[in-house]
This record gives sequence, structure tokens and C-alpha cells, in this order.
Amino acid sequence: MPRFFITIEYDGGDFVGWQRQDNGDSIQGQLEHAASAILGHRQDIPIQGAGRTDTGVHALGQVAHCDLPDGFTERQLPLALNAHLPPSIRVIKANIMADDAHARFDATMRRYRYRIHTRRIPSPLLSGRVWHFGQNLNVAAMHDAAQLLIGKHDFTSFRATHCQASSPIRTMDQINITEHNDEVHIAVSARSFLHHQVRNITGSLVLIGQGKWTNADLANALEQRQRSAAGQTAPAEGLYLTEVIYPYLTPVSTG
Amino acid sequence: MPRFFITIEYDGGDFVGWQRQDNGDSIQGQLEHAASAILGHRQDIPIQGAGRTDTGVHALGQVAHCDLPDGFTERQLPLALNAHLPPSIRVIKANIMADDAHARFDATMRRYRYRIHTRRIPSPLLSGRVWHFGQNLNVAAMHDAAQLLIGKHDFTSFRATHCQASSPIRTMDQINITEHNDEVHIAVSARSFLHHQVRNITGSLVLIGQGKWTNADLANALEQRQRSAAGQTAPAEGLYLTEVIYPYLTPVSTG
Repeated sequence: MPRFFITIEYDGGDFVGWQRQDNGDSIQGQLEHAASAILGHRQDIPIQGAGRTDTGVHALGQVAHCDLPDGFTERQLPLALNAHLPPSIRVIKANIMADDAHARFDATMRRYRYRIHTRRIPSPLLSGRVWHFGQNLNVAAMHDAAQLLIGKHDFTSFRATHCQASSPIRTMDQINITEHNDEVHIAVSARSFLHHQVRNITGSLVLIGQGKWTNADLANALEQRQRSAAGQTAPAEGLYLTEVIYPYLTPVSTG
Repeated sequence: MPRFFITIEYDGGDFVGWQRQDNGDSIQGQLEHAASAILGHRQDIPIQGAGRTDTGVHALGQVAHCDLPDGFTERQLPLALNAHLPPSIRVIKANIMADDAHARFDATMRRYRYRIHTRRIPSPLLSGRVWHFGQNLNVAAMHDAAQLLIGKHDFTSFRATHCQASSPIRTMDQINITEHNDEVHIAVSARSFLHHQVRNITGSLVLIGQGKWTNADLANALEQRQRSAAGQTAPAEGLYLTEVIYPYLTPVSTG
């Protein structure tokens, strides 16, 4: 049973999120269905994802692992799985890995991007792909303030009140905020994230961008260690899981 | 009755094209409905567009003109019209112009962009926004060959057989072909275009990009002056009307 890592792109708008749930279609559920389908539904194939994206959150490079019987190549597997997936989910790459490689536990870095659309009038062509904020933002001020969050902190103020992680301590490695025509992009990197962490950080950074908050207000929100001290939760539709990074230099085989 | 130029963004996938037709919703029809609605349906307001985009073709900067009773400002008009439009059409700007300014006849340049997605696996997040070609293309070769089309030519080989323009002669001002991650973009500029001209040029340029055609083949296709001499018509969903340019330096009023 070779272990495969698969890289997945999806439009989160069509699903209840990554994780299998009773109340609707999940990305994990669709992938497990597809993996079972390529084996003629003779066995269940569990799929373990690197990150549990919420309802509506997109992915350009989610990673998951699964074990499959011999015979699939790295080149064929994406096509085989895609034949059983809805068009809003596509497996874009497969790599054969060591038997104990783990998509969730071995990840050393996760990267997310949050897209904010600042033009007053919403864009039909970006509908469901960005947060339509509709106001100009001071990007330099946002970037500068965001650097206060870099490093190891208690992020209680920026995690969902129902977040189930045992510790609110996380280490933020990078936050880069850049402007792209009518969009502001917030790119964040960390080994792992708390529930809603990127969306809650975004909700506070726009207060900086609007001039409603100073750097001291952001530092204070962090110190308070309570969710109500920080800004709103930015909507799911602007968030993308862009990349998951592993320490393995190269996959075991190139297929 | 001040004359307004309105700039419009739309997702062409939801419509039968720009032009009012009996067989479905058109962008022009929706705009005329909205313009009448803001006047309490007391009068019909004809909307004259700069370019007639086909079914499925998108616009980032279509321009149209209409005459409205006194009282609307440049800032209010987009909001008023958008309140009566489906989310896949948005008026993003309005400018009060001279009474004889004409969105179609006064345009000195139209710019289109064609987006080709070259990754083997289609992208869920670009669905309906690009032509999924699925193969690598030699972008430098495409750009080089495309320069053969610059200038004044008989473009019979590149216009739809049912094109109703009285002359097949057009002057191509610019064709720039560039690479953006997994996409190839073909940006073209001319005073005016024949029916399907950009899509038919794209269909021939991909033959160059695949190495199936040489520059001599493209030159020969142009010289033949028959549609069958050139490549396929690229699909509508990759095409965007990006900008329409007028000789007026500034609008008459800034509202």
C-alpha cells in the first residue's frame, strides 16, 4: 500500500469545509468517495488532510495523504481521482512518499492568503473569491502593524471562541501585506494556526488600514487574551490555503 | 438630458452576450431595464455600447452611453443602476459627457485580453474565466509570430464566416503575449475588431505555441483570406473586453 501525498485545489463555496460532516458535502468526504470509487468501492480509503479549512474557504495547495494499492502512478492518480470528483475540486499533483509520511503532523509550514477587494463597487468576476470591503486601506500601515504579531504569542484574542486547540500559543513566521490593483493581500505563514486565526487577524488589520486603530490598539488586543478585544472575523470567501510545506527535500519517487 | 458614459464589468457566462436578443438575457437588455427602473419605468432609455461582446465573453471595462433626466450625479448613478442589476453585471463608473459623445463611434481603441490556462489539470477557481488548454505553450514564439499581424491587413481568415462588417480590413495596433504562472495572456489593441477576430487569432497562435505552425504558416493563413486557412475559434470564456479608449482628455464634468 504505497502512501501518496495529493495536492488539491478547490472552490470552498460549494462545501461545508474540509472535514467530513453530516450536514453537507465536505472536501474530505468527496475525496474519500473518489478514492474508493477508483477501487470499485471495494474498500474505504481514509484521507488525512494537512489543514481543516472552514466552510467557504478555498485552497490552491491543500495537501492530504492516503494509502492505495500498488499500481497507481503519480501521473495517473490525479486523473483517476478527478474523474470521480465535482469540478470544484481538483487533485493537481500526487507524490509517492515514505510509508510513515504524515500530511498533517509532518507539515513544517502552512501558508494562507487573504484577499480583500477595496473598490467601492463589487466585482462580478471576483464574486465569492474575495472579501468585498469597498473602502481604501492604508496598506503600509497594515503591514507595519502586522509585524507586531510575528513570533510566539498567546493568540487567544484571535481564535474562535469554540476553537478546540489545547494551547492558544502559536508562532507566526511571516505576515506580508501587499497591494494588487484593487486588492489588498495578506499572506501569512506559520507551522500551524488556530481556528479562525487568519480571518480574525484580518478583521483587526482592516481597522488599522482604515485608521480606526493604531499599532498600540493591536498590541493591546493581543495582550488582552480575549476574543472580544480584537476585530471582526473576516468572511470565509476571501481566504485561501495556498501551500503546505514539508521537511522532505524531494518525494521518495518521481513516479 | 445629460449624456452619461458608464463603464461596466460583467461575467459573460450568465448572458447571451452584450446585444439585446429574443433568446435570453443580454447585458444591454439588463442595463436598459435598470435605466428604466431608476426612472420608475416611465420611459425607455436606450443604451449604446462600445462593443458587442458575444455569449460568454466577459468585460472589465465595457463602455456605453445613455441620456438621463437631470439629477443623477456621477457618484450616485452606478449605485442606482446596480440596485436593479443582477450581481453578474456592475456599473463601476459614470461620467457626464458632451451631448454628442458616442460610446461606439468615438472609441479610438479597444483592448481585449485572452486568458489561456496551460496547467494539465483544470483549475476549479478559474472555471469559466479562462480557456483550459492543458498544455505548455512557447510564449516567446507566439509573441514573435503575432507581430506579423500588426498593421493594416485583410483579416478575412480570422473573422467569423457570418461576420457582418462591410470590410474585412482592420488595423491591429498591438499584440502582447505574456506568461503569468500557469496562464498565457494575449493582449490585443485596435480601433475596432471583426466578429470572433481575437478568438480566431488566439486559435492560430496556440498552433504556433505548440510548435505545430511556423511564422510562415501564420503569414500564409493571413494571405489566404479564407476562414478555413486559420486555426480554431478559441472558446468565449477566456476573452475579456478590458478597456475602451476615447480621444477626450477628460470627461466634461467630474460630477
